[in-house]
Amino acid sequence: MPYFDAASAAPLHPVARQALLAALDEGWADPARLYREGRRARMLLDAAREAAAEAVGCRPDELVFTPSGTRAVHAGISGALAGRRRVGDRLVVSAVEHSSVLHAGEAHTAAGGTVTEVPVGRSGAVDPEVFAAALDSRTALACLQSANHEVGTEQPVAEVAEACRAAGVPLLVDAAQSLGWGPVPEGWSLLAASAHKWGGPAGVGLLAVRKGVRFAPQGPADERESGRAPGFENLPAIVAAAASLRAVRAEAAAEAERLRGLVDRIRVRVPELVPDVEVVGDPVRRLPHLVTFSCLYVDGETLLHELDREGFSVSSGSSCTSSTLTPSHVLRAMGVLSEGNVRVSLPAGTTGQDVDRFLELLPGLVGSVRDRFGAPEPAAAPGGSEALVVDSLGKRCPIPVIELAKVIGRVPVGGTVTVLSDDEAARLDIPAWCEMRGQEYVGEEPSPKGGTAYLVRRVS
Amino acid sequence: MPYFDAASAAPLHPVARQALLAALDEGWADPARLYREGRRARMLLDAAREAAAEAVGCRPDELVFTPSGTRAVHAGISGALAGRRRVGDRLVVSAVEHSSVLHAGEAHTAAGGTVTEVPVGRSGAVDPEVFAAALDSRTALACLQSANHEVGTEQPVAEVAEACRAAGVPLLVDAAQSLGWGPVPEGWSLLAASAHKWGGPAGVGLLAVRKGVRFAPQGPADERESGRAPGFENLPAIVAAAASLRAVRAEAAAEAERLRGLVDRIRVRVPELVPDVEVVGDPVRRLPHLVTFSCLYVDGETLLHELDREGFSVSSGSSCTSSTLTPSHVLRAMGVLSEGNVRVSLPAGTTGQDVDRFLELLPGLVGSVRDRFGAPEPAAAPGGSEALVVDSLGKRCPIPVIELAKVIGRVPVGGTVTVLSDDEAARLDIPAWCEMRGQEYVGEEPSPKGGTAYLVRRVS
Repeated sequence: MPYFDAASAAPLHPVARQALLAALDEGWADPARLYREGRRARMLLDAAREAAAEAVGCRPDELVFTPSGTRAVHAGISGALAGRRRVGDRLVVSAVEHSSVLHAGEAHTAAGGTVTEVPVGRSGAVDPEVFAAALDSRTALACLQSANHEVGTEQPVAEVAEACRAAGVPLLVDAAQSLGWGPVPEGWSLLAASAHKWGGPAGVGLLAVRKGVRFAPQGPADERESGRAPGFENLPAIVAAAASLRAVRAEAAAEAERLRGLVDRIRVRVPELVPDVEVVGDPVRRLPHLVTFSCLYVDGETLLHELDREGFSVSSGSSCTSSTLTPSHVLRAMGVLSEGNVRVSLPAGTTGQDVDRFLELLPGLVGSVRDRFGAPEPAAAPGGSEALVVDSLGKRCPIPVIELAKVIGRVPVGGTVTVLSDDEAARLDIPAWCEMRGQEYVGEEPSPKGGTAYLVRRVS
Repeated sequence: MPYFDAASAAPLHPVARQALLAALDEGWADPARLYREGRRARMLLDAAREAAAEAVGCRPDELVFTPSGTRAVHAGISGALAGRRRVGDRLVVSAVEHSSVLHAGEAHTAAGGTVTEVPVGRSGAVDPEVFAAALDSRTALACLQSANHEVGTEQPVAEVAEACRAAGVPLLVDAAQSLGWGPVPEGWSLLAASAHKWGGPAGVGLLAVRKGVRFAPQGPADERESGRAPGFENLPAIVAAAASLRAVRAEAAAEAERLRGLVDRIRVRVPELVPDVEVVGDPVRRLPHLVTFSCLYVDGETLLHELDREGFSVSSGSSCTSSTLTPSHVLRAMGVLSEGNVRVSLPAGTTGQDVDRFLELLPGLVGSVRDRFGAPEPAAAPGGSEALVVDSLGKRCPIPVIELAKVIGRVPVGGTVTVLSDDEAARLDIPAWCEMRGQEYVGEEPSPKGGTAYLVRRVS
């Protein structure tokens, strides 16, 4: 039963399991106590911190363990912003950061601060020059992920770090997706990560803050973890997390090479096997194990369900799989199709057979979902009126795009189709469909019947 | 090697270990995902929540899991204060709450709020009428522990809850020390606890918020745990925590009875075996497994070290064992002796033999520490001048009290001894010594030589 969602969570690494079991026996006591059980716990904690710091590339006293990657990000951002309050209240982040970063930004805005989102290109990467231009003398902190969690694109961290250095702005790197594969390029000021992404247990994140970076922990004081992560240390899990990080790093180069080959197979074969697919994310500067594609005229939730029935666990950034019924902010920022979105992230040890079986099944599953929605046949005889209006109000993704595709052939080249829709996914997917199909997206305006009117001109 | 510090942390309960191992295999995936591994994780999370809610005595949707008891307290206090911001900004807490509560109070004060500490009597308990009198129409929240973590005294939670209800003020109960022994009396609005105190793993706390209590989670938003505990759920540990709570509750009545007998043995025998000892905390309304006593003329850290060498792990509220060199705020609020303080908290399964060996060793260890410090012999011939001054400036606990005890016999009844000291422990321990010795503590004033002058009148 192949599990293809390693970017969400990975099963516990055997080394982590072993370390966890040992530390449950040896490391349950309070490391702040002076008696032997406490001293033993302290030694385990110190050793785990040293191992993690070595993998991160920092000093042990620069690194604390937090209860999760999310908490590491929250503590890192709030502490760095407070530490540089006198400099200014501007936070600069990329538009495709993890929700923990964006939520910390919303909290900053609610408290009266300013957040600037740096846009990304269609590959999902920021342009270092655009990022640099967003930095100014009132910028307290900049945040950039090492690699994107939804599309796998690596960010130009070294170049952005250099720009931050030149501007005198500390850079927080969310390394959650990449730390298991290798260290983050030099130049960061703060770094956050999450153990269950690298085969460690849940309940452990890490936050590194370089010496010299102004940092004022927020929230109630606490003596543990240098005052940066309140509460009793989750010691057995910390020990397991550090052991796992060391173990996956030892295997990282070979496994990355192998998984990169499997992902390349998916990148190449999916568009060959399935018509009307867009593979998104940078094809070269990317995580080794992650690939994302979107299928026109497909409902993401239904496709996930079909894949799950066949034993494949994947995730999706389609609006129908989100509780808010909006497409992933990452796909939106990239301006790529969100309907029928599938993220495949391979855990270590995934076999070529698993990938081949996935490629074998996918075309049939996509086809059956499309049949169910009545997706258009490719090409239809032209002719008919110059301007058509399609009323898709009240209909959800992928219906508005399907209806657009069905009628575009009925207007002559130069004619227009107006799609009325109140589905949030349409705002992203209609322009993305035009891009894929070589049609012209003219723009949107409020529809007199409610919702939005999207205007498309047939050019081919 | 008897471990007598269960109030800090307890070894993992065998049931917790078993549940943890099973959940590492079955519950590593993201419970928010729709595929089978995610659904399985969601089922485990739901089942753990139901089990914990049953033990707490609340509805499952009133309870969230947090990364620690400290985080549960922090989130509970900040959320409740924010939820009732329009009512007022007053927080009422007992003076002997856990540091996590007091630190949350300090954060509230730093943000412009007001904190009122309700004093306790010499037993460590608040007087419900005094607590009630502290509540007013601008009180947003009251906090009271179920039982004290340092001296074991149970608080009158039911009476205080009734007073809070009458005043329309929500009551947060920190049940960290007692939840394994049984549910908290009815009437609370919020409840916080910590799994590693009941044989569960580290990394899990719980926060229950009754329906109808106004609550506004603070900090960055997050979709997990009803928005009250951000970050990926520490699921295997949560499963283990719930299993352990159920298991210890099944054994609680019998084990409480047994440990209560062992603690009674310590409460009775220590003052018989060791001269100049004060056993503190309520002798009846108390936790079953915890007893605290203080030994005059003894340095707490040295005594802990001697006990550790003999294989006994205990903790202490003496100033010398604290990083700030101040005595425990609990002992201070109770006005009891802090020097030579020893807290014994027995884990489940402690044997009578362990306790007997402790009682056998203790007198010799206390005696040898006293010899090292040159503690006074009991009684000395009276006579000499009417007023003596002892300069203990620059000397740490227990020296100032030892020097006072050495010279009190040299002034006649009615005469005075003035002790000059700049040790923070003296402020608590000199009055406590007077109380124990039946001498009159007159008061303190700034000393012209620096530090404080403590005036004692000999009356017996």
